Amino acid sequence: MKDAIQAAKDAFPAWRAKPPLERLRYLVKWKTAMDKHNDEISRIETMEHGKIIDEATKGTERAIENIEVALGTPSLMMGYNIKDIEPGVDTVLSYEPLGIFGIISPFNFPSMVPLWYAPYAIASGNCVIVKPSPLDPICANKLSEVVDEIELPPGVYNHVNGDVDAALELLENPDIKGICFVGSTQVGRDVIAKKCGETGKRYIAQCSAKNPLVVLPDTNITETVTNILPSFFGNTGQRCLSAANFVVVGGDEFYKELMDKVVAAVSQIRVGYGLDQTVNMGPMQSVAGKERVLSYIEKGLGEGATLRLDGRKPEIVGDYPDTCFLGPNIFEDVAPDMTIAREEIFGPVMSVLRFGDLDEAIDFVNSSNYGNGACIFTTNGKAAREFNHKVDTDNVGVNIGIPCPLCLFPFGGTKDSFFGIMHGQGQEAMRFFTDSKILTQRWF
Amino acid sequence: MKDAIQAAKDAFPAWRAKPPLERLRYLVKWKTAMDKHNDEISRIETMEHGKIIDEATKGTERAIENIEVALGTPSLMMGYNIKDIEPGVDTVLSYEPLGIFGIISPFNFPSMVPLWYAPYAIASGNCVIVKPSPLDPICANKLSEVVDEIELPPGVYNHVNGDVDAALELLENPDIKGICFVGSTQVGRDVIAKKCGETGKRYIAQCSAKNPLVVLPDTNITETVTNILPSFFGNTGQRCLSAANFVVVGGDEFYKELMDKVVAAVSQIRVGYGLDQTVNMGPMQSVAGKERVLSYIEKGLGEGATLRLDGRKPEIVGDYPDTCFLGPNIFEDVAPDMTIAREEIFGPVMSVLRFGDLDEAIDFVNSSNYGNGACIFTTNGKAAREFNHKVDTDNVGVNIGIPCPLCLFPFGGTKDSFFGIMHGQGQEAMRFFTDSKILTQRWF
Amino acid sequence: MKDAIQAAKDAFPAWRAKPPLERLRYLVKWKTAMDKHNDEISRIETMEHGKIIDEATKGTERAIENIEVALGTPSLMMGYNIKDIEPGVDTVLSYEPLGIFGIISPFNFPSMVPLWYAPYAIASGNCVIVKPSPLDPICANKLSEVVDEIELPPGVYNHVNGDVDAALELLENPDIKGICFVGSTQVGRDVIAKKCGETGKRYIAQCSAKNPLVVLPDTNITETVTNILPSFFGNTGQRCLSAANFVVVGGDEFYKELMDKVVAAVSQIRVGYGLDQTVNMGPMQSVAGKERVLSYIEKGLGEGATLRLDGRKPEIVGDYPDTCFLGPNIFEDVAPDMTIAREEIFGPVMSVLRFGDLDEAIDFVNSSNYGNGACIFTTNGKAAREFNHKVDTDNVGVNIGIPCPLCLFPFGGTKDSFFGIMHGQGQEAMRFFTDSKILTQRWF
Amino acid sequence: MKDAIQAAKDAFPAWRAKPPLERLRYLVKWKTAMDKHNDEISRIETMEHGKIIDEATKGTERAIENIEVALGTPSLMMGYNIKDIEPGVDTVLSYEPLGIFGIISPFNFPSMVPLWYAPYAIASGNCVIVKPSPLDPICANKLSEVVDEIELPPGVYNHVNGDVDAALELLENPDIKGICFVGSTQVGRDVIAKKCGETGKRYIAQCSAKNPLVVLPDTNITETVTNILPSFFGNTGQRCLSAANFVVVGGDEFYKELMDKVVAAVSQIRVGYGLDQTVNMGPMQSVAGKERVLSYIEKGLGEGATLRLDGRKPEIVGDYPDTCFLGPNIFEDVAPDMTIAREEIFGPVMSVLRFGDLDEAIDFVNSSNYGNGACIFTTNGKAAREFNHKVDTDNVGVNIGIPCPLCLFPFGGTKDSFFGIMHGQGQEAMRFFTDSKILTQRWF
Repeated sequence: MKDAIQAAKDAFPAWRAKPPLERLRYLVKWKTAMDKHNDEISRIETMEHGKIIDEATKGTERAIENIEVALGTPSLMMGYNIKDIEPGVDTVLSYEPLGIFGIISPFNFPSMVPLWYAPYAIASGNCVIVKPSPLDPICANKLSEVVDEIELPPGVYNHVNGDVDAALELLENPDIKGICFVGSTQVGRDVIAKKCGETGKRYIAQCSAKNPLVVLPDTNITETVTNILPSFFGNTGQRCLSAANFVVVGGDEFYKELMDKVVAAVSQIRVGYGLDQTVNMGPMQSVAGKERVLSYIEKGLGEGATLRLDGRKPEIVGDYPDTCFLGPNIFEDVAPDMTIAREEIFGPVMSVLRFGDLDEAIDFVNSSNYGNGACIFTTNGKAAREFNHKVDTDNVGVNIGIPCPLCLFPFGGTKDSFFGIMHGQGQEAMRFFTDSKILTQRWF
Repeated sequence: MKDAIQAAKDAFPAWRAKPPLERLRYLVKWKTAMDKHNDEISRIETMEHGKIIDEATKGTERAIENIEVALGTPSLMMGYNIKDIEPGVDTVLSYEPLGIFGIISPFNFPSMVPLWYAPYAIASGNCVIVKPSPLDPICANKLSEVVDEIELPPGVYNHVNGDVDAALELLENPDIKGICFVGSTQVGRDVIAKKCGETGKRYIAQCSAKNPLVVLPDTNITETVTNILPSFFGNTGQRCLSAANFVVVGGDEFYKELMDKVVAAVSQIRVGYGLDQTVNMGPMQSVAGKERVLSYIEKGLGEGATLRLDGRKPEIVGDYPDTCFLGPNIFEDVAPDMTIAREEIFGPVMSVLRFGDLDEAIDFVNSSNYGNGACIFTTNGKAAREFNHKVDTDNVGVNIGIPCPLCLFPFGGTKDSFFGIMHGQGQEAMRFFTDSKILTQRWF
Repeated sequence: MKDAIQAAKDAFPAWRAKPPLERLRYLVKWKTAMDKHNDEISRIETMEHGKIIDEATKGTERAIENIEVALGTPSLMMGYNIKDIEPGVDTVLSYEPLGIFGIISPFNFPSMVPLWYAPYAIASGNCVIVKPSPLDPICANKLSEVVDEIELPPGVYNHVNGDVDAALELLENPDIKGICFVGSTQVGRDVIAKKCGETGKRYIAQCSAKNPLVVLPDTNITETVTNILPSFFGNTGQRCLSAANFVVVGGDEFYKELMDKVVAAVSQIRVGYGLDQTVNMGPMQSVAGKERVLSYIEKGLGEGATLRLDGRKPEIVGDYPDTCFLGPNIFEDVAPDMTIAREEIFGPVMSVLRFGDLDEAIDFVNSSNYGNGACIFTTNGKAAREFNHKVDTDNVGVNIGIPCPLCLFPFGGTKDSFFGIMHGQGQEAMRFFTDSKILTQRWF
Repeated sequence: MKDAIQAAKDAFPAWRAKPPLERLRYLVKWKTAMDKHNDEISRIETMEHGKIIDEATKGTERAIENIEVALGTPSLMMGYNIKDIEPGVDTVLSYEPLGIFGIISPFNFPSMVPLWYAPYAIASGNCVIVKPSPLDPICANKLSEVVDEIELPPGVYNHVNGDVDAALELLENPDIKGICFVGSTQVGRDVIAKKCGETGKRYIAQCSAKNPLVVLPDTNITETVTNILPSFFGNTGQRCLSAANFVVVGGDEFYKELMDKVVAAVSQIRVGYGLDQTVNMGPMQSVAGKERVLSYIEKGLGEGATLRLDGRKPEIVGDYPDTCFLGPNIFEDVAPDMTIAREEIFGPVMSVLRFGDLDEAIDFVNSSNYGNGACIFTTNGKAAREFNHKVDTDNVGVNIGIPCPLCLFPFGGTKDSFFGIMHGQGQEAMRFFTDSKILTQRWF
């Protein structure tokens, strides 16, 4: 890690001095190289992480989209200025790269998350050090091999494997100017935000979530069922914008029809090896992850919820050991204060809650400690507007299962889901990775 | 403090829901009321803080300018959006006020600093709590009386006197969403940044400085001398953008001519009571402040610098006790590693250093732990550009004594002079006081 | 007019050189003075133009809102810049005021339209010459008296009464850099756009319209009826964003219920003198205007439409000669190709058309030569989105009777409703009133 | 041309509906394809137009840079929005592509000028029709072959050869929404601006120039001479940002030294075939062009200027007919009112004028009918600032020979050098190629 930091430090002065369009040209090459290696990267991700190949490919595509958006950097990092702010005095603000940024990325999207940050940091003249999760580092390693192909000056993009020690070096080294982190709330707040506060670094810490998906009785049930499935069970539920609570508003008849169709559809999900194209859901990424889910299911049962669909011992497509596999689980009769309605399970578990009207549903949404995403399914314009205005999350979806904004927009969160000010991705990333420097000038 | 936080919490929902132009109208009234009370506020500042009335008036004007700039808020807080980000899917980002912000302001500009932040916070839909320095709280109290006149809804602008306990309540209370602080590096880093990291608040911490003012031998000496005086001795040197190190490049002849004229001009500074219009420099704000300066002068002498102008026992205009008065001091033969060249004295002391060329001078500038402001005096376009490109401070002045950007621009700092990401003032303040929320929407 | 142009020419250099915040301070005074005189201006507008006092007051308020939005000018006119665009080369773009702009305003909003443009032009450093409609010049004259109170430097804001000759001088004089015009398509295209093309001026020409208001059967009928009334009959139909075609989608039952309620509500409109607070609709502004409307009603009858509500001989509240009075008129059985469905009547006439579904209604909307505004009333999110995406007008309203954007946004139009590129009002106005000048700089 | 317009009309709806990132991906391919064919395109340009291969290559690179800048389009075309503009009412502005744009490009930069516009138009969802100069259409034809390789949907980018008739069809056809034109002031004003005014199209017309290059006596003579040569004689003087008037401030000694060095350096320019790498200047593009230059030289001699360097019968490298060749020409003793000081010669002729001080030089600069570019060579910061503030041109260079902004910035002009409002290139192009559409929405 120390070598990597030194390499980045050596590379920074020349890299920041390059004309913005020259840096842009590296990104064009990078995008092209990533397109070329998309299949390979995605296959590695499936083999290493377990998710099905379609999900891995979408993740890699999303990574590439961040490079695409960062192609706008030269315009997006322009400063602003005005003449004669006082007679004879002109002022010019410029956005300056800061130096070296550390990217501490999680296990659940190993090919995507490093590129939530690196393209913007690099395009704006900084250097980065990617420290991937030790649970699946091969995928990020492949990312750095792709970077090698585009012949970025050495030290601009660095990759270091490691665990806590490597992360601590990033957090404590004074040459690191900022940290981009995706992981749990506990680490985000108690380690990242605290350490960065002490060492004067800026940081983005995207953390835990417990995302609700609200359905109103005026919704189109068929479309709704189709759309929410990937939201709850995509990536085997290991996604910070996964839906976790299914919040149904409406009478018994609507509820019954909706849930029957949901359960019927979820029951069709085939669990197995991600490179098998007939499979719809891969295993959990780790045994520990599976055990965490199982323990939450026990808690749910213990607190009185009804496990309508039990995925604890799934039928597995093909002949694989069942170390990490889990099927989809659906809890009904979930009360708002149950653990399974409040804590992040990070696995394929849907908790179903019922409320009498939209206001009650919104109150429940806002009672969460987390504020990542919230979705509503409705055909009604008024309900959608009210939901968007009232829910206290940074990402809102209307008839969208995963309210992840395309990376032209930043990706944040409220409450315990995010620590920091500026978010990564989109034009907002430019403000995180640069500092505003102001020249006030007159002549005599 | 708890009552104030509760009042702000009660006021927030209705205040944020007001149309932006309605909030703007309060700011127009506020500006008008501040204009009306400018003289009174400034006189209080002189009486309470000690600075001369012209300086106090300029400070109040600067406060008002922040309200003027915040009049652009409705346009500046617009979100952005794009259609068909995927077929049938539209995305809209909006900037949302966050809630309550605490403003912990320092003793040196009691009428100005609270308004570095409050107008932007309020215009964008937040509530604020101003906790002024316990050393001169009457001035800020007057500010809040002016706010009373404009009939803001109760709880939007709050004023609470207090010391450490009041500040800690702001830092620890979960309803406070962010902190604006101006003060020492030690408090900024070890209290503000650390506490805010732990409690998940955003923060601006503008801290200590040791600002250099570089002179090249091609400069116009007469203009230079006129312009640098207020830079070193204005506000009795108690200003985070005061020049502290006078960095002279050039040969002995130039140096002699320059310093003779500087010393001659500085010797004319009349010390006394700030409401006496014949006076050029008021006392230090406190006895403790005076003692700190005296102890630094001792250090300077002890480390071998020459005290060419000794202001320790100044002649005082009028018949006042000399509790806090200090005259201007000029140290020559200051070496780059002396304490008086490295630490913030925060008083009327100029440390003169000599370097052989611009590059050496810039190296010295960049060797500082601080990065608030740096100025150069020259007629040469190339030198000015090089200085601006190479010095690692956020505020750069060319032929400007105090490189404080007009408040259309943000005011930041690098290294130990600033903690946080977004700066206060100007359009950048909008990003500090709001959060980006993203709606992704489709219909079926 | 020539004297006014000379006065503006003399005033320009000093005005453009003023620091932006100084210009802003005049606008704060202007807003305050307009607030003070709002009642007086509005009463003059009612007496001179005929509209009821509530409408006049709303118009004056809208004028003031433009001053409020223009208070953001210093930030909104910032240029942009980047360093090291090539090694050692920096580029700075600044927005420069151009000189003198002519404002040729119409009779229908005499106190509002001059201020659609003047605040932005002036705030950004230009001078203006207002030439109001000769039909009601007293109101604009009052506007210029208010400007006198704020002591703008002479020549910055100029008022010249006159007709075609005065307008031609504005169009042909080389010192006039741009024209803001609101009036008919014929004059806008054949005089304003053509002359400005010949003389190299930039222009905004906001022209005629024939705005549709579409109702879907899922709408809330009570709310809809309440909201559409001012849209068709406000300002006695003399408004470029008035609804003219009432486009009803849905079956006979819905149509009958809707139209019965519309007719019942419209029948309650009391016609009379605008200062009589019991009156809901004032007279036409001129005899010529009334005659134009009557002739269109004849055409409608001749082409086979049914005049369900006949306002040609209205009952008048109070004892006034009926020179200009007209009551509200409702035509049913209007076919898409009838004159009363295609041409701008500019009076209190509603043409009702029926279509089988939303697509047909949108096709009709887009078949118009005009593209000012289009509205839809529905509770359905999907229909609203489709309408907004498909209609070819610049202003779209969802459950809004008059889709006039608040002046934080620009006000334009498509097809024969607008000639030019940049629109007036909001931040877009800044680009119309300034030119981008680019400095490319290096030093050796 | 009509077929092309129809093809574009057919292509537009699907093209504009594509997600912005999908359109972006075509531009990435386009940039890559242009890089691949750069050599071939540049060789064609040299063979067809005559300029030397280095100049042709730089032109093609500049074309590619415009694609690079247009890669920022998705972010740059974002609209803006605000909630609760009135209680319950939200407003969203979006930038909408308009349809089809015509690009009428000139003979002097056949591979560059079409791409000043096409990338931005296409990236933002429009279709274009390129009509190159009939004098050298093969180069633009090659550009369209490159576009074929990237498999843009048919009809998005169209190429039509032709002369006046083809241009008139573009100007008169109502399906063409705007025109981008580069050419003479006469055509720009009397044809483009006039016709577009009549037919309601937006337009950019970049026209004639007579650019001054001012030298102050404090300049570094060696650097200055090196830098100004390409400015006067690059592209054989056929460039809208070529310097034409060499404006020397200073005494006789300085003048003599400067001019001796200029003449010495210019005398070294080798004239010949552009693909011969030893050649520094190619022929005029046409016999007519050469004759125009010769006739201006006659005028200059007739009006009393001194032809210090006579390039009318140049020595030609290699064995080529001298149909179009001209050597560099330098006129001294040029008076400010001579034809050769006022009219655009568009060939390798430097007119040298002398003035006593900077103010006189600036007065001369501003006396021109044209306002494209103006440059100053000086080491003095004050002089550079004054020059930039006072000269009335849109492009200003400080120690830059050709003040052409990199295409991250727009390229405009003042007075008779430009007709229109928005300029092409950079982010400003986005506003030319899109229209702002505003949705005002509430729900009940």
